[in-house]
Amino acid sequence: MMKEAYMDLALSLAESTIGQTSPNPSVGSVVVKDGKILGMGSHLRAGEAHAEVIALQQAGEEAEGADVYVTLEPCAHFGKTPPCANLLVERKVKKVYIACVDPNPEVAGKGIKKLEQAGIEVEVGLREEKALEINRSFFYYMKHKRPFVTLKAAMTIDGKTATANGDSKWITAEKAREDVHKQRAIYDAIMVGSNTVKHDNPRLTTRLPQGGKNPIRIILDTNLSLSPDANIFDDEAPTWIICGKDADTTNFKAKHPHVKLIQLQTEKLNLNDVLAAIGVQGIQSLYVEGGSTVHGSFVKEKLFQECHWYIAPKLLTGNDAIPVVGGVAPENMSEATDLEIISLEQIGSDIKVIARPKQEGN
Amino acid sequence: MMKEAYMDLALSLAESTIGQTSPNPSVGSVVVKDGKILGMGSHLRAGEAHAEVIALQQAGEEAEGADVYVTLEPCAHFGKTPPCANLLVERKVKKVYIACVDPNPEVAGKGIKKLEQAGIEVEVGLREEKALEINRSFFYYMKHKRPFVTLKAAMTIDGKTATANGDSKWITAEKAREDVHKQRAIYDAIMVGSNTVKHDNPRLTTRLPQGGKNPIRIILDTNLSLSPDANIFDDEAPTWIICGKDADTTNFKAKHPHVKLIQLQTEKLNLNDVLAAIGVQGIQSLYVEGGSTVHGSFVKEKLFQECHWYIAPKLLTGNDAIPVVGGVAPENMSEATDLEIISLEQIGSDIKVIARPKQEGN
Amino acid sequence: MMKEAYMDLALSLAESTIGQTSPNPSVGSVVVKDGKILGMGSHLRAGEAHAEVIALQQAGEEAEGADVYVTLEPCAHFGKTPPCANLLVERKVKKVYIACVDPNPEVAGKGIKKLEQAGIEVEVGLREEKALEINRSFFYYMKHKRPFVTLKAAMTIDGKTATANGDSKWITAEKAREDVHKQRAIYDAIMVGSNTVKHDNPRLTTRLPQGGKNPIRIILDTNLSLSPDANIFDDEAPTWIICGKDADTTNFKAKHPHVKLIQLQTEKLNLNDVLAAIGVQGIQSLYVEGGSTVHGSFVKEKLFQECHWYIAPKLLTGNDAIPVVGGVAPENMSEATDLEIISLEQIGSDIKVIARPKQEGN
Amino acid sequence: MMKEAYMDLALSLAESTIGQTSPNPSVGSVVVKDGKILGMGSHLRAGEAHAEVIALQQAGEEAEGADVYVTLEPCAHFGKTPPCANLLVERKVKKVYIACVDPNPEVAGKGIKKLEQAGIEVEVGLREEKALEINRSFFYYMKHKRPFVTLKAAMTIDGKTATANGDSKWITAEKAREDVHKQRAIYDAIMVGSNTVKHDNPRLTTRLPQGGKNPIRIILDTNLSLSPDANIFDDEAPTWIICGKDADTTNFKAKHPHVKLIQLQTEKLNLNDVLAAIGVQGIQSLYVEGGSTVHGSFVKEKLFQECHWYIAPKLLTGNDAIPVVGGVAPENMSEATDLEIISLEQIGSDIKVIARPKQEGN
Ligand SMILES: [Zn+2]
Ligand SMILES: [Zn+2]
Ligand SMILES: [Zn+2]
Ligand SMILES: [Zn+2]
Repeated sequence: MMKEAYMDLALSLAESTIGQTSPNPSVGSVVVKDGKILGMGSHLRAGEAHAEVIALQQAGEEAEGADVYVTLEPCAHFGKTPPCANLLVERKVKKVYIACVDPNPEVAGKGIKKLEQAGIEVEVGLREEKALEINRSFFYYMKHKRPFVTLKAAMTIDGKTATANGDSKWITAEKAREDVHKQRAIYDAIMVGSNTVKHDNPRLTTRLPQGGKNPIRIILDTNLSLSPDANIFDDEAPTWIICGKDADTTNFKAKHPHVKLIQLQTEKLNLNDVLAAIGVQGIQSLYVEGGSTVHGSFVKEKLFQECHWYIAPKLLTGNDAIPVVGGVAPENMSEATDLEIISLEQIGSDIKVIARPKQEGN
Repeated sequence: MMKEAYMDLALSLAESTIGQTSPNPSVGSVVVKDGKILGMGSHLRAGEAHAEVIALQQAGEEAEGADVYVTLEPCAHFGKTPPCANLLVERKVKKVYIACVDPNPEVAGKGIKKLEQAGIEVEVGLREEKALEINRSFFYYMKHKRPFVTLKAAMTIDGKTATANGDSKWITAEKAREDVHKQRAIYDAIMVGSNTVKHDNPRLTTRLPQGGKNPIRIILDTNLSLSPDANIFDDEAPTWIICGKDADTTNFKAKHPHVKLIQLQTEKLNLNDVLAAIGVQGIQSLYVEGGSTVHGSFVKEKLFQECHWYIAPKLLTGNDAIPVVGGVAPENMSEATDLEIISLEQIGSDIKVIARPKQEGN
Repeated sequence: MMKEAYMDLALSLAESTIGQTSPNPSVGSVVVKDGKILGMGSHLRAGEAHAEVIALQQAGEEAEGADVYVTLEPCAHFGKTPPCANLLVERKVKKVYIACVDPNPEVAGKGIKKLEQAGIEVEVGLREEKALEINRSFFYYMKHKRPFVTLKAAMTIDGKTATANGDSKWITAEKAREDVHKQRAIYDAIMVGSNTVKHDNPRLTTRLPQGGKNPIRIILDTNLSLSPDANIFDDEAPTWIICGKDADTTNFKAKHPHVKLIQLQTEKLNLNDVLAAIGVQGIQSLYVEGGSTVHGSFVKEKLFQECHWYIAPKLLTGNDAIPVVGGVAPENMSEATDLEIISLEQIGSDIKVIARPKQEGN
Repeated sequence: MMKEAYMDLALSLAESTIGQTSPNPSVGSVVVKDGKILGMGSHLRAGEAHAEVIALQQAGEEAEGADVYVTLEPCAHFGKTPPCANLLVERKVKKVYIACVDPNPEVAGKGIKKLEQAGIEVEVGLREEKALEINRSFFYYMKHKRPFVTLKAAMTIDGKTATANGDSKWITAEKAREDVHKQRAIYDAIMVGSNTVKHDNPRLTTRLPQGGKNPIRIILDTNLSLSPDANIFDDEAPTWIICGKDADTTNFKAKHPHVKLIQLQTEKLNLNDVLAAIGVQGIQSLYVEGGSTVHGSFVKEKLFQECHWYIAPKLLTGNDAIPVVGGVAPENMSEATDLEIISLEQIGSDIKVIARPKQEGN
């Protein structure tokens, strides 16, 4: 195998753990000597061994003189585990291939420096684009201290997300809905507005044949208006409620002992504050499932990094139907938020579009 | 070349003339003997030579004993031109390959019968599916005496076709708009509602670098409310106005001597009647460009055969924006009109979806 | 349709006649005005109308002001037909799109000049690469006055073309053999050595379900050693025999009144002389089917422009089997003749490779 | 992720270790609970932990109730390590997905039975085809007790492997040669005849940028005729010599203390005996690099399972050149050994074909 193939293997290992390592990134590592793989592994869960540690353990004493492929710069500071850079030095590996550097500006480059000072060869940037893509939420969070926000919507091909009376069952077919559940398992948290809870009474859990992590359920409920019988108050997954300063929180804790309540200092929920507040709580990735008004606010304030759009080939019609993105339209079409299509595919009988806000200069 | 390759060539010839032969179908023909093409041609325009005639003329006397490939059953009746079936018999061709039979129930099979009675071998069905696709408007019209209706819409990815004040310039980018002009050149007529005329004052002509036939411009204007200065009253293309029984038509002809006025017998414009009325006038294919309300009516009454949806990767937001398909929504999502995706592609920076109403039993 | 699409149509028309227009090139033409095709056609056979003439005839008086697409520069000299450039001028067309200029250095550019002098716009080079490919034999012949030579071979995957006793039936399967017959219909002439005739007694005709032109059968027979009963002496197709100066030609004409005999001025058949001699006779394209020794000579003298290699997935084994290319090997592997792969495909159960001698500097 | 995706991951893990686990198969395993990967790993080297053991170790106590994906039926017997089936039972996993059953008839099904008797659900056959492909050498060896034989050859497109005087440098270009080195790293042993050693004096080692296991070098040398200075006698990799019963072995051991000598009981080397002899020694996969005569014998005796054919686009010509497969040809083309193409690709400027003997009935 060529060096690209070994890094691709490390990236596959990393990719297989997306969604289960938060707040840590997904990292894979492979140890190779004389064309033989001596060890390989992924970091599986926060608090457990880093990828390099697992791979080096498998390699044992033979790690001396070996090449190590790792999808992210090895850590250089003492955290829950001792620094991987130190371990690589101890084990006297010969060369370390690093797909991308640590995004944390305080530590970026320190792992590389430690390796080089110990006389270990370092090659940075092999398959970097893919490595950045795998941990794009983590990288975004490290830089901005706010979650990477993905807006998810299901709509008819005429842009409706529900009938006038709120019926939205079902817009998309089974395959698309299953894909949504796969996404839920990947994100730290899922967010909906209180109206969605009132209308649809969703459970917002991950339901897949092989299971999947439930995201934290975050509800925007300015006035704490939700019924305590709502499904999101069950104990299947953690639930957080975000309310405004005038909300009456008196009995909330008594009624919902397991629910985290975040009260903002403003009457209305400003999304900037919301994202800052949940960023502080460590939420790195957020999957916003609407409804229409919530999506409208995220778009208007340009507070999202990705859109996942599921488009069902059906026409609902109606000025009175609920548009997939609500709020108040700008005056001119030229003020619409431009996106760039990242992928376009048919998923079962539906269409899935992934898009991101267009960067200036593109 | 194999027989499939010769028929494919005939189909390419037919396809190249789509949009210019109405009310006749697009037909191609190739004459072959001993593996050599002796003649080939398409029917180019109503009133001119049929495809077989052109191909046989080129072949000259050598047509005797040749194979003839034709994408539609040769005609058997005397029309503007003598029947092609007779000519094939006269020329003593050996075998005729026919992609599909004539859709007109009164004449279907008569051409084939005439050939067979003269001892000519006939093979029907070679590449039939493609042949039916090329002339789908013609086939539909022959059967139903109404135009094949395609709904065309451009929308943002959140289903908006204009801002609240009607601004819709520009939703899609240049390549998608050029594709629309290619479509206009293909259809017999284009239809919009009077509101679209008032808001956008469109010209509704075909504007392509190499030119292209203008469709007839048909405006639904129940009360004859349009300003005589509207662009659709220019003389770049024929314009037809459809109004209701209460419209005041007094001075219309004087003001618009070149415009055809069709007055229906009802107060409001019932789409069924509209399609019947223009069907009587020979319109075989209709490209409905909206607006929102017109689209809503076509969908509600299930009076369309195809949708061309151009989706721009941009988010407009807004409950007040104009949805791509208006009207009144049904009460339940399950009442939405199901479509089947025929093609999905990226066209420039936009998405184009072609879909058709789902057939029962699919 | 865009201008590229119209030229593509003209190229399809040209391509459909490959093999039937010799010694003329395959040319297609389309006449377009206002986005409508007014005429289209191909030159079908030497002596008959040129492509532009057919297309302009169909267009009739409407050709005035039209755009004309033609895959080769219109002719400017009086030949069997009057010059097409004159006709284009007479018909007052507006613009002529030309895929590639005439390869004949004496006339190249004259057609274009005539058009431009008459005030007609000319655009040269649209889809030029494809146009050159379609007529590559013709272009080669115009430049070199010798045929474009394609070596065709069928071999087992271990490079054998026959067993020690000459059995070669069948190396490849049906689809590959059918493809060979398609090729035969395209070339002016087919060539084999006398040994192939003696061993296999081939007919060397084109046998396809829909028929196909037979190439002239050219046999290299230095000493006129062939039995008069050989199949190549039947009257299914013209046969030419090339012999050396010492051959006894006494009774040849009497025995084979319909066979053309070409006697060279040397004892042995020098391939350079052979190609010059048949080039003088107007052979523009030659399909060399072997055998082994003949192929060896063509390769050694670097007198070929293309290879069509059919490789059957079977192993014959044997030092004594007949190698696909015989003769005497050079001393070093580095002296082998380098090729460039043009296409690689599976054709039925066999492999087909098209390759051309590598150009210096590639 | 779906169950297919988890098994695909396990198969990727297995695939990454092809060539380094012999005499054990390549096996991968993934442990999953609630949609989270708890452990994953491959068996890396004979004598070390099995894939399931590594994956279960990573999973720790959480393995209870988990799903385990494994590409080969877990072992049920005590070998160098305790049986994996027992471990799976101890760890109380819930379900085991097995891609394919153990090929060893004595133990096949025993692992599954043990699991089922302990109440663990078992699903067999998920991605079976891919799993069989990965370990095709191992499976073949288990069944036949002889190595899986791949014939590898590089030839010009006219089937030559060397000039008359033996020059073969270089037929193929760099990318193809690199691919050969990747293959060498995968096979247990490489075989050539003594003539190849005499002519080319090859090293027969694996030379890749990232290294790679050297195969055992096996030379067929009936009479022990090789010079002691030959490169294959260096100490870069193990070398085995196979000789006939009349060979003079007197001083062999003294001259080549590190070389294994296998003397057969016949004068000439019968390939059946050769394969049996090295099968007994545990060689599961053999990469036969020729030369021409050796390939001829393998083909004639139908003693190979796969062909890797590298075809360079060059023509050497020559009856005197060395054909890629020598020996004595059968009398008729119909006696050639039929192959089935498994893959066909361009690799750099060369062609690579993988083929296998056609099964009866195909
Ligand atoms: Zn670390
Ligand atoms: Zn007709
Ligand atoms: Zn001409
Ligand atoms: Zn085991």
